[in-house]
Amino acid sequence: MREVFHQSLEEIQDRLVEISELVTVAIGKATKAFGTSDVTLAEEVIDDDEIIDEKALALDELAIEVLARQQPVARDLRIVVSALRMSASLERMGDIAEHIAQLTRMRFPERAIPKGLKSTFTKMGEHDVKIAQQLTELLRTEDLTLIDTIRNADDALDDLHISVFEKVLSDSWKGEAAATVDATLASRYHERFADHAVSVARKVAYLSTGDWTAPTEGIEIIVAEGFAPDNT
Amino acid sequence: MREVFHQSLEEIQDRLVEISELVTVAIGKATKAFGTSDVTLAEEVIDDDEIIDEKALALDELAIEVLARQQPVARDLRIVVSALRMSASLERMGDIAEHIAQLTRMRFPERAIPKGLKSTFTKMGEHDVKIAQQLTELLRTEDLTLIDTIRNADDALDDLHISVFEKVLSDSWKGEAAATVDATLASRYHERFADHAVSVARKVAYLSTGDWTAPTEGIEIIVAEGFAPDNT
Repeated sequence: MREVFHQSLEEIQDRLVEISELVTVAIGKATKAFGTSDVTLAEEVIDDDEIIDEKALALDELAIEVLARQQPVARDLRIVVSALRMSASLERMGDIAEHIAQLTRMRFPERAIPKGLKSTFTKMGEHDVKIAQQLTELLRTEDLTLIDTIRNADDALDDLHISVFEKVLSDSWKGEAAATVDATLASRYHERFADHAVSVARKVAYLSTGDWTAPTEGIEIIVAEGFAPDNT
Repeated sequence: MREVFHQSLEEIQDRLVEISELVTVAIGKATKAFGTSDVTLAEEVIDDDEIIDEKALALDELAIEVLARQQPVARDLRIVVSALRMSASLERMGDIAEHIAQLTRMRFPERAIPKGLKSTFTKMGEHDVKIAQQLTELLRTEDLTLIDTIRNADDALDDLHISVFEKVLSDSWKGEAAATVDATLASRYHERFADHAVSVARKVAYLSTGDWTAPTEGIEIIVAEGFAPDNT
């Protein structure tokens, strides 16, 4: 029974890695499409999100089956429950990549990135892609040192998010209302993507250390998931 | 054992209702504070969100304990797993109420509601409060006819959400960039709040009908959770 459970856990882990890889591809394409006004690439991201949704649903079903058949307790139970939560976060990250692609498509053939914010959004996109890559690696290897990289990229994204609002609210901002709306939504999407990644990374840390409810000592992870620097 | 499990389920249901009641109070205060620039009321919402977070966490711990001790299978297992998910959605609805309160505080003593959008946001707030009330009632009574009311209010909110963007992007919009940012974020928060409520309502429907993966026949619920009419 223990051996069967171990195999189930490996299967769950493999599937989380697979979904995280798909999310990495999605955010890579979405931020590239956003930066280059590539509507074909944007359409790909929008079409492919369904695959992420399906895989997340299938993983949830597997996790529920494992709970029913193998009746795990203690740490094993928490691993399976946290897999359900990680699946939900990854699925949401896919949705956000889709939202960025939708912004691109909505503005096409115009540029979705407002003037004066191109380098900011390029950096935000790079951080999101890096975060997704590191998260995939973290899920695959459980190498907790990767969490620092994810956290640092998330901090950088928060700073960039704030800088978008400083720019938009400054006297030098000449954007039309449409540009202001786009900047606001795009910045929020980029920042939320990273928040979800941090949330998944935190769960990996909890599982590795066995400490479910308190932040991992020495690994200072932002507690206020969903905290948006723009609206405090 | 069956009797113990039944008691546990009642306890879980009671706690979901309790959290939903707190979320209803939070969104009621947040939208009132937003409409009247009442910073004291906004502060209350911000302070009290911690209570919602704590209660959601405690409910999660209870659900995990029930899984470990009572090892439910089949429909019973799905009820407990879905409680974990409903808890996450309710917790997020609390966060969104807090975000609306934070917008109010950030703009104080200025008005957070941009000129020309007061009646729109008043209606959005009323729909969100109604949705939260109906959701609490749905969780308490499992009266599935309430789902229609929630769905209709969500549809109305989606229309209002679109109307905010039509207004902001129209020639008649004279708002500064700050007003455009506020309108964009506030509209998105109001709309997301309802999305999460629909997601919880859908889970109640699934549980009552036993159909976990497909939408309930005769109860047409928006499938694209997280779909934002503003960015398609």
